[in-house]
Amino acid sequence: MFLSRASECTKLVGMDLAVLEDIRQLKYRYLRCVDQKLWDEMADVFTENATVDYGTRAYGKPLKLAGRDEIMGFFRTALGPEIITVHAAGQPEITVDGDKASGTWRFEDTVIATEHRVVIAGAAYYQDRYERGADGAWRIAHTGYVRTYEAMMSLDDLPSFKFLAGVPKTVSPTTVPSTTVPSTTGTNVADTAVR
Amino acid sequence: MFLSRASECTKLVGMDLAVLEDIRQLKYRYLRCVDQKLWDEMADVFTENATVDYGTRAYGKPLKLAGRDEIMGFFRTALGPEIITVHAAGQPEITVDGDKASGTWRFEDTVIATEHRVVIAGAAYYQDRYERGADGAWRIAHTGYVRTYEAMMSLDDLPSFKFLAGVPKTVSPTTVPSTTVPSTTGTNVADTAVR
Amino acid sequence: MFLSRASECTKLVGMDLAVLEDIRQLKYRYLRCVDQKLWDEMADVFTENATVDYGTRAYGKPLKLAGRDEIMGFFRTALGPEIITVHAAGQPEITVDGDKASGTWRFEDTVIATEHRVVIAGAAYYQDRYERGADGAWRIAHTGYVRTYEAMMSLDDLPSFKFLAGVPKTVSPTTVPSTTVPSTTGTNVADTAVR
Repeated sequence: MFLSRASECTKLVGMDLAVLEDIRQLKYRYLRCVDQKLWDEMADVFTENATVDYGTRAYGKPLKLAGRDEIMGFFRTALGPEIITVHAAGQPEITVDGDKASGTWRFEDTVIATEHRVVIAGAAYYQDRYERGADGAWRIAHTGYVRTYEAMMSLDDLPSFKFLAGVPKTVSPTTVPSTTVPSTTGTNVADTAVR
Repeated sequence: MFLSRASECTKLVGMDLAVLEDIRQLKYRYLRCVDQKLWDEMADVFTENATVDYGTRAYGKPLKLAGRDEIMGFFRTALGPEIITVHAAGQPEITVDGDKASGTWRFEDTVIATEHRVVIAGAAYYQDRYERGADGAWRIAHTGYVRTYEAMMSLDDLPSFKFLAGVPKTVSPTTVPSTTVPSTTGTNVADTAVR
Repeated sequence: MFLSRASECTKLVGMDLAVLEDIRQLKYRYLRCVDQKLWDEMADVFTENATVDYGTRAYGKPLKLAGRDEIMGFFRTALGPEIITVHAAGQPEITVDGDKASGTWRFEDTVIATEHRVVIAGAAYYQDRYERGADGAWRIAHTGYVRTYEAMMSLDDLPSFKFLAGVPKTVSPTTVPSTTVPSTTGTNVADTAVR
């Protein structure tokens, strides 16, 4: 009885639940590195032969890449300081089979091309595969997603839209809006709060 | 000492943490089935006598349904291919009491009625109850939510808004926008990136 | 062998995984209390000497507060019924070191100042520290975030925008929109669905 309980604990929990946590944190590190453009930290989240298949249509066709070097080359080139990205993933349904695992995630992303004043937003479901390496670390072997929807629009449709933060450093400080906030609404926003 | 630790492990972890994971994955499956319109897979997330109480005001009054059949009948009828839905839930605060559990979740949803060019978006807190059946599987016994806010608007307010993906298959391919993307902004989006 | 496994289970799982769950639920309670304005319940999520450093620019400069009393005083004063807030955090990367822990979280927030018809939205990464008190409960010792971006706009840019729920009780019932929903689009939204 006692043995079976301890064994169950080791099996169900000491292994699988800890692996689920490892894989969740792997995914979160990947997403944080994208949004914060931490390319050096990011490289290690992929296996050497990892593949990606992003279902975005902003290129006119889905984007497929193979190998850690090609993937990282894409990110380093494509996401410069003028591109703001926000990736929010959750709702992981992960299954583990030894040193391999697969996972489905819901996610929403917002991409703002600040120089072009274009916003691309959408939602999708990731379908990922993970592998545990000889060093015991889990890495992404494949990541891809299928779009629920994706849409783009120009910020010119929103005449009052102003950035309060996130404007690339290359933009002239005179256009950074902390002084323009109150005038936007004719009221002192600091009085109405916003945490 | 050793016994008490192992016992604590079994109690805290082998039971509760695994149950929390089961319930999270149950909720995620439910939400994924809604957004992907997987009605056959979805039916099994509910107990036979499950109830729902959605606090949406889009019907003029909250929507209450009773029984798996009535619930599934609603989803099959209401969410056709012209309705895009995105449900993002997280921040689960789940408490377990034997074969019953309850949970609070934050969520945000976006519903796009593509034919009417209407978007309904909002946020809410779910208050759910779960039950473990004789087969050992957890199911939703009740789900409902109270709105933090809900709002609707027409896409006509955003003249530049264009779908890149997610347009229902019934829409004529000639209106699908992969060829219209560059002209939207007068620039080649592929050059400015988008992860 | 058996001892080492049970020991590993207790260490990895009975301790760390349960702590991670405790800290996640702590953070979720904090966020729910903000959005639901549950100030009495919220106070206990902070240590007595907690500090906050919110990177919002809506005040013209980041907002720094010290001590539970000052923090709660800010929330009670700043977030009245006319301010709708939605905080969605996820992607926790938490590390535990005895009775202290630290965590990084992605989050997005939407703040609607209903009287001024202003929306402030943005994304950020939290960097938090947590402590376990003598009573065994984890509390927030420090929370702060760095913005990925933050922007504000007026709802006047969206002429068709209407609240379906979330309008403060102080607003005249005659302006509450359940009867105005159909007229917004010239169609009966109840026929087109919205779960």
